Amino acid sequence: MLSRLRGGRVYDLSVEYFIGMPSWQAAGDPHYRIWMTHTPHGTIVDDPLGTGKTMNGHVSYTGAAVSMYTHTGTHIDGLAHFGLNGRIWNGFEAGEHLGDRGWRVAGMENMPPIVARGIMLDVASAKGLAMLPDGYRVSREDLVAAAQRQQVRLREGDVVLIRTGRMLHYEQAAAYMANPPGLGLEAARFLIEESGAMIVGADNLSLEAFPSELATDYVPVHTYLLAEQGAPIIELTWLEDLARDEVYEFAFIAAALKLRGADAAPFRPIAIPLR
Amino acid sequence: MLSRLRGGRVYDLSVEYFIGMPSWQAAGDPHYRIWMTHTPHGTIVDDPLGTGKTMNGHVSYTGAAVSMYTHTGTHIDGLAHFGLNGRIWNGFEAGEHLGDRGWRVAGMENMPPIVARGIMLDVASAKGLAMLPDGYRVSREDLVAAAQRQQVRLREGDVVLIRTGRMLHYEQAAAYMANPPGLGLEAARFLIEESGAMIVGADNLSLEAFPSELATDYVPVHTYLLAEQGAPIIELTWLEDLARDEVYEFAFIAAALKLRGADAAPFRPIAIPLR
Amino acid sequence: MLSRLRGGRVYDLSVEYFIGMPSWQAAGDPHYRIWMTHTPHGTIVDDPLGTGKTMNGHVSYTGAAVSMYTHTGTHIDGLAHFGLNGRIWNGFEAGEHLGDRGWRVAGMENMPPIVARGIMLDVASAKGLAMLPDGYRVSREDLVAAAQRQQVRLREGDVVLIRTGRMLHYEQAAAYMANPPGLGLEAARFLIEESGAMIVGADNLSLEAFPSELATDYVPVHTYLLAEQGAPIIELTWLEDLARDEVYEFAFIAAALKLRGADAAPFRPIAIPLR
Amino acid sequence: MLSRLRGGRVYDLSVEYFIGMPSWQAAGDPHYRIWMTHTPHGTIVDDPLGTGKTMNGHVSYTGAAVSMYTHTGTHIDGLAHFGLNGRIWNGFEAGEHLGDRGWRVAGMENMPPIVARGIMLDVASAKGLAMLPDGYRVSREDLVAAAQRQQVRLREGDVVLIRTGRMLHYEQAAAYMANPPGLGLEAARFLIEESGAMIVGADNLSLEAFPSELATDYVPVHTYLLAEQGAPIIELTWLEDLARDEVYEFAFIAAALKLRGADAAPFRPIAIPLR
Repeated sequence: MLSRLRGGRVYDLSVEYFIGMPSWQAAGDPHYRIWMTHTPHGTIVDDPLGTGKTMNGHVSYTGAAVSMYTHTGTHIDGLAHFGLNGRIWNGFEAGEHLGDRGWRVAGMENMPPIVARGIMLDVASAKGLAMLPDGYRVSREDLVAAAQRQQVRLREGDVVLIRTGRMLHYEQAAAYMANPPGLGLEAARFLIEESGAMIVGADNLSLEAFPSELATDYVPVHTYLLAEQGAPIIELTWLEDLARDEVYEFAFIAAALKLRGADAAPFRPIAIPLR
Repeated sequence: MLSRLRGGRVYDLSVEYFIGMPSWQAAGDPHYRIWMTHTPHGTIVDDPLGTGKTMNGHVSYTGAAVSMYTHTGTHIDGLAHFGLNGRIWNGFEAGEHLGDRGWRVAGMENMPPIVARGIMLDVASAKGLAMLPDGYRVSREDLVAAAQRQQVRLREGDVVLIRTGRMLHYEQAAAYMANPPGLGLEAARFLIEESGAMIVGADNLSLEAFPSELATDYVPVHTYLLAEQGAPIIELTWLEDLARDEVYEFAFIAAALKLRGADAAPFRPIAIPLR
Repeated sequence: MLSRLRGGRVYDLSVEYFIGMPSWQAAGDPHYRIWMTHTPHGTIVDDPLGTGKTMNGHVSYTGAAVSMYTHTGTHIDGLAHFGLNGRIWNGFEAGEHLGDRGWRVAGMENMPPIVARGIMLDVASAKGLAMLPDGYRVSREDLVAAAQRQQVRLREGDVVLIRTGRMLHYEQAAAYMANPPGLGLEAARFLIEESGAMIVGADNLSLEAFPSELATDYVPVHTYLLAEQGAPIIELTWLEDLARDEVYEFAFIAAALKLRGADAAPFRPIAIPLR
Repeated sequence: MLSRLRGGRVYDLSVEYFIGMPSWQAAGDPHYRIWMTHTPHGTIVDDPLGTGKTMNGHVSYTGAAVSMYTHTGTHIDGLAHFGLNGRIWNGFEAGEHLGDRGWRVAGMENMPPIVARGIMLDVASAKGLAMLPDGYRVSREDLVAAAQRQQVRLREGDVVLIRTGRMLHYEQAAAYMANPPGLGLEAARFLIEESGAMIVGADNLSLEAFPSELATDYVPVHTYLLAEQGAPIIELTWLEDLARDEVYEFAFIAAALKLRGADAAPFRPIAIPLR
């Protein structure tokens, strides 16, 4: 694939992080925060390094810190994020392997950089919409129709990104978070079992639509992909530029922060179109 | 350059994040923290989504959150990190553009993904050492000698990464942080002004060596690169695999988290060797 | 006053801190967070002190950490919280005294413990209501009527706590936070200038009602009390037990956490009825 | 006791919170952090409430946030902090009662305000020292000697605070934290079982001295007091003013923040001498 890289445009598939941004908040997880630990003026007042007022007036120091749920912004869910009956992918059991600082196995430090063929399926556009309706559940047929319209064929090992158009609401956090459209379970099965996708992602908050299709599992697409198929999930991708330029096939290059023990990590994927 | 990508190995240039990891702590900045917000068992006790005990026992939920100084782990310093006399690169003044949530201009959300030729200069090996001594200041001559030994020629637009060997201490935070070897000012000038480097980086804590060469500036390499040359700085890169395989020229691909207003951001760069 | 302390009941005037609790969130401040840093089981897996599995199974270690805006839960606003035209009480100017870690003057470490006569004015009950209506602005007349009904007379140095009844909504954060009733400016003047109150507080989110009575100041009661009168403000007090028992006069004893440089701090005041 | 309160001086038994302060850091717990969320100038740049530049220049807004391990600064350990063999005081088992947000039983929200007789035993002064030596383990005899010298007799229900003098190092965090003197197990037994103390505290980091007296328990004084006796522990108290004034008997008044589910909470105790 690397020999087919088209020069020129590199597409940025990531959203920005800012106070007030959308994130998964329904279960009480930390919202994104950023704060200043050093400012040019504050440093003059505080003198944290003991260099004195003249030095601090000359050398203008800015530093910032952040805190966030690991599922904030464009990110990838690792296999530890959801298991079934106390066990994650590979049969690892929480009681044995999960400490107060994360999993001793299957943490994000083990996820390699991803350099793979990427396919974007623009379901919204295939349905003639700017954005799929609230709560809409993308079906197997929707995916087939989008692939057909785009004349792309999925292959073993692809990273498949589904566009719902939800990113049009990204700067309005409440609108983005409330009842998003998402992937249905049958559609997920189609991507993995019929089409050979390695990783599935989308431009919405949590990949799938709510409420669940199953009475016994409130996140069946997550448990199917992560716990049953060993397939990571990418969420909150920015697909608007690809959609505008009708770029459906590309090198997908991304590497998640190696947060030891974590079940997910932010990253900033890029897409380079293929010849 | 993309047409010269060699298939096969992708080199991961990033370190892991964990409690106790080294970071810039001299000025009181936050150490890296990770904590669990959801665990399979805790979810049964807390029931944060109100789904009930049976559901929580079946769907095993793990979630983690992190906090960190933006200069933690492998990261890139943006142009707002250090200015001179209250102004950063482009003449932006803190009083006008710096709020409590970062810079309204020149924040990390403006830094594009980096796809460029990367060159690793293995100064430690060129000097016949596993690791440069504590406090050693890499000179222009050291860089010239390393490039000559490696038979690489620097070019306009390169990302140049200096290997001091300091990563051998990475898992011993105190040893890694104490008095690291680093880049001298003349060497930095050589990279930018003579060699055309776009970005300079290293495998140590803060690129440069301390104490400063100048009485009037405690971080002269930082202010030279960021404030005078508009050149970002990469720190804490993992260069050991490249060194072992003697890979000195590669496609450097990296994209920093788009932390709005921030002066730096973590990322996980990769290197793909060139033919 | 201390000689008049009645034995027996000590009233707790503080609310609980928990994930999802109400707090001032309109300007993007951190919500309350708590997380576990050590659990009996996690310690067995992590072994953070290197004491081994047997020891960790025997000695069952729990540790928790928290983060919060300093105005979270029952707390007191110090004089640095709001100033006018860049200056806080005593004329201290932010440019000179405010660093990245707080004020070098007038921080909460300077606020002494409070042992004073406390008076609770139950305005809601005086108006025959369980809770004042949303957005209701407590007037001078309301305070006079409540004091008269309770047969209390305010004195120089009192801590005066106004009950709006809003605490009935405390466990429903959205209801508690939305458009609370609060103190009007004229009523605040009455308490300070006519009645000699040293500190004014209430059971609502921000003492005053919104939107502001003044076009030129969005928090006129805060700037009046803090910046013009040098009077701290207590918010989010639990007055329900005092109201139920019709305890209107008491020893108010409280000491805010000595957060160096902070503009506010949480505390847990108590009331001991007087003979 | 309340009828014996002496007017006049109120003693503040709390230390200040600041970046760089000592805290329990050996097991990777969060250091104290404070940061600004609003500053008078930053608010003008950010305009977080949309009130505009003129308004933000007139109404000067300061806000700060904090994060900390709950055992930071002057604080009290609740009964959930240490158990034995998976169970805390009252036989509560972590597997049943401990979620990701703390204990569902025995959390700090259940600890009532403390209004009790306080006794300070100045062991350092009794031994003719400004400060007990590093690692010194206070014995039963030391306590008896100090009580005798001070002519105080312990009674059922007392809060007993042991002065080691360690606070002389408080502003030098490394010195304060390294190998502190502390209470021995036999001395703890004397206080609880022979003397009837309700709560035991000290001016050092962790009450007891290290390494442990027992091979099977690395914190035997903690497990004895918390898990076996149901007695909370107070740490990091400021006793220097009491010592200077030779005030050994007082009303101890304190109320810990009601952190739901937490195993400890900061507070700011005061002492009012008795007649």
